[in-house]
Amino acid sequence: MSTKNPRLSFSRAQGRQPEHKILAIPGPVEVSNNVLEALAQPPLSHVSPDFTRIFQEALSLSRKVVGSQNGQPFVIAGSGTLGWDQVGANLIERGDKVLVLNTGYFGDGFKDCLTSYGAVATILMAPSPGETVPLAAIESTLAGQKYKLITITHVDTSTGVLSDVHDITKVVRRVSPSTLIILDAVCSAGCEDIKMDAWGLDIVLTASQKAIGALPGLSILIASPRAIQTYSSRITPVQGYYASWKKWLPIMEAYVAGKAAYFGTQPVNLVRALTEALKELMKDGEEGLAKRIEAHRKVARRLRAVAAQLGMKSLATQGAEAAGLTAIWVPEGLTASEILQKAGAKGVVFAGGLLADVKDRYIRIGHMGVSVTDEARGDTNRITDVLYSVINELLAEKRMDRATTEI
Amino acid sequence: MSTKNPRLSFSRAQGRQPEHKILAIPGPVEVSNNVLEALAQPPLSHVSPDFTRIFQEALSLSRKVVGSQNGQPFVIAGSGTLGWDQVGANLIERGDKVLVLNTGYFGDGFKDCLTSYGAVATILMAPSPGETVPLAAIESTLAGQKYKLITITHVDTSTGVLSDVHDITKVVRRVSPSTLIILDAVCSAGCEDIKMDAWGLDIVLTASQKAIGALPGLSILIASPRAIQTYSSRITPVQGYYASWKKWLPIMEAYVAGKAAYFGTQPVNLVRALTEALKELMKDGEEGLAKRIEAHRKVARRLRAVAAQLGMKSLATQGAEAAGLTAIWVPEGLTASEILQKAGAKGVVFAGGLLADVKDRYIRIGHMGVSVTDEARGDTNRITDVLYSVINELLAEKRMDRATTEI
Repeated sequence: MSTKNPRLSFSRAQGRQPEHKILAIPGPVEVSNNVLEALAQPPLSHVSPDFTRIFQEALSLSRKVVGSQNGQPFVIAGSGTLGWDQVGANLIERGDKVLVLNTGYFGDGFKDCLTSYGAVATILMAPSPGETVPLAAIESTLAGQKYKLITITHVDTSTGVLSDVHDITKVVRRVSPSTLIILDAVCSAGCEDIKMDAWGLDIVLTASQKAIGALPGLSILIASPRAIQTYSSRITPVQGYYASWKKWLPIMEAYVAGKAAYFGTQPVNLVRALTEALKELMKDGEEGLAKRIEAHRKVARRLRAVAAQLGMKSLATQGAEAAGLTAIWVPEGLTASEILQKAGAKGVVFAGGLLADVKDRYIRIGHMGVSVTDEARGDTNRITDVLYSVINELLAEKRMDRATTEI
Repeated sequence: MSTKNPRLSFSRAQGRQPEHKILAIPGPVEVSNNVLEALAQPPLSHVSPDFTRIFQEALSLSRKVVGSQNGQPFVIAGSGTLGWDQVGANLIERGDKVLVLNTGYFGDGFKDCLTSYGAVATILMAPSPGETVPLAAIESTLAGQKYKLITITHVDTSTGVLSDVHDITKVVRRVSPSTLIILDAVCSAGCEDIKMDAWGLDIVLTASQKAIGALPGLSILIASPRAIQTYSSRITPVQGYYASWKKWLPIMEAYVAGKAAYFGTQPVNLVRALTEALKELMKDGEEGLAKRIEAHRKVARRLRAVAAQLGMKSLATQGAEAAGLTAIWVPEGLTASEILQKAGAKGVVFAGGLLADVKDRYIRIGHMGVSVTDEARGDTNRITDVLYSVINELLAEKRMDRATTEI
């Protein structure tokens, strides 16, 4: 990497890590030195006492990050998508009615997953991209029909739209208290408020590589006692094998109790890095977590202010803007691809659009984890600086082109 | 770790890796410094050109390790078990007849997986633990009934039994040529001969953490054109979601062609380490791979000779002994647990039994990957030395106990 940061050299900013471009995408994100060092330890036996202690801690801390005391944690090798699969395989029986709130691409995906297990899905779409699903629509739909479960994408990674989970849970518990509430928190756990017990969530599923601050490759899911009860009392057998709680529940219960057990070999290095990341996340308890969430919001506000100066509007409407991810429309005349390319050359990696029909019309900037919480790294300044200079340079180039053409 | 190796200090033996116990279990195994360093790089974007090149190389090399030119590789976040799940979800339609060859615990598991997808399984058990399934039994079973697929566990990790895959494929192709041949090569790819194309295998599935020499967390599967054809022409939809080739096939095809694509976030660090491991494995082409396999056999023979001197017999009958794993009965009067504990204290990790009813009657010693191929590490000498001294010390202790009791 030849690009130099005018304020902070890479080696100072990134500590013991080799020089590299800053990942400012909605995951994987930058990880701390401690997390990377935990990852890089020689592998442990998956049934050794050392690993058992580490895994037990990961399970226990996973619960805390989402505000659960007694939820049953599952940490399994797989991408975040495996969390959807666990819901489909273990909670759905063919013909079950489910209500899917859709605020972007990941609502489509969750629906797709559940229907592949025989669910009959009703979709409530946000009125337009960037908006949330109105509470009134949720209420009237729930009132008109009994649903086994409702799914909420906390932050849709394709749009940066934040759903108000607390408000939604209040509606569900009032209008249809037996409906299980499933939260896709892949892009929110660690950077948005989640009070699993207090709000009555039944499933919170997430992944390791976003605001949790570890590396990709782990599906993390917490199930309420009610969700486990629903699984235990199913009439038809669990569908599938790898996602089956019939296999994993005894394993996870064993490790929670500090005992090793075997179904599939745990990804020991990824788990070790996850435990380190969760320890960092929870080192000052709930209060510390709340501060971290606030730090994410602050960075998000600052980034949106810079974007606004550049004439770039958020996809997410006001009040529905995520703390860990900003999706912004590119200025008239520019494309996402040229912005990404120029930013990459300056040492910062942004992401393009994920909504197929406006893919090149917006960019997504991830601001999660150590980039936000470790100010000494200077990542967030660098991200805003690069956005600022890239857009200005590109606009200037276009003006120059136009001027040349006009001459 | 306070234990000192008399011949070779840990730091010299393990190079740049921190001091640690040698993993002599059937996976995870010791990994090379290069693999660990590849793992420990800051994460890349899963859709970046850099990662795309790395992933493309992993896919291409995975094929080569199992002797396939045109097979379709799948590398997906998950444990080795996910390979079974891919077979069940994509190749099984309810009511399909399958023939499962059982040489241990993993035969039971594969059957369990396939029947969970609606397969009707016929099991051919090895006559007793340590033996392989007789070819005559396979032949007569295939002659009497048409099976959609047959599964072979190349090396059963619970028993160390090596099946003669080449001989079995000859029988299948002669007696029932339309039956798909599925090879579970989790404990064999990289340390046993596998000629996917030449032998007419339809699926070879393995995992990253054994003789491949990388870290746990990746399911690696190669499908023949005929297997892909069977999947494409299924009448009922694919079962499940996370294991579905409907989702993953376009993704893998894209990366094979050097283009990024998204279904779930790839575990970028694990993939990077896998690519490094596969490069080491294939650096001298097929000839180099053959030499590595021979090196594993040599170590296995030497270890079995030491075990024989100690009066410890292999579970596997002669000719059915794996190259990367030795399962041996413990001497009369000793238990697996006490052997494991004493070996651990001397800095070497062995594994206990996996067959429930003789769990404490035998131990398993893994000898795969860099421990075998990098002689300068001194791992295999250390493994045999520790086995030798542990058994002798325990036997001496027992004699002393007896003498004391008799006095």
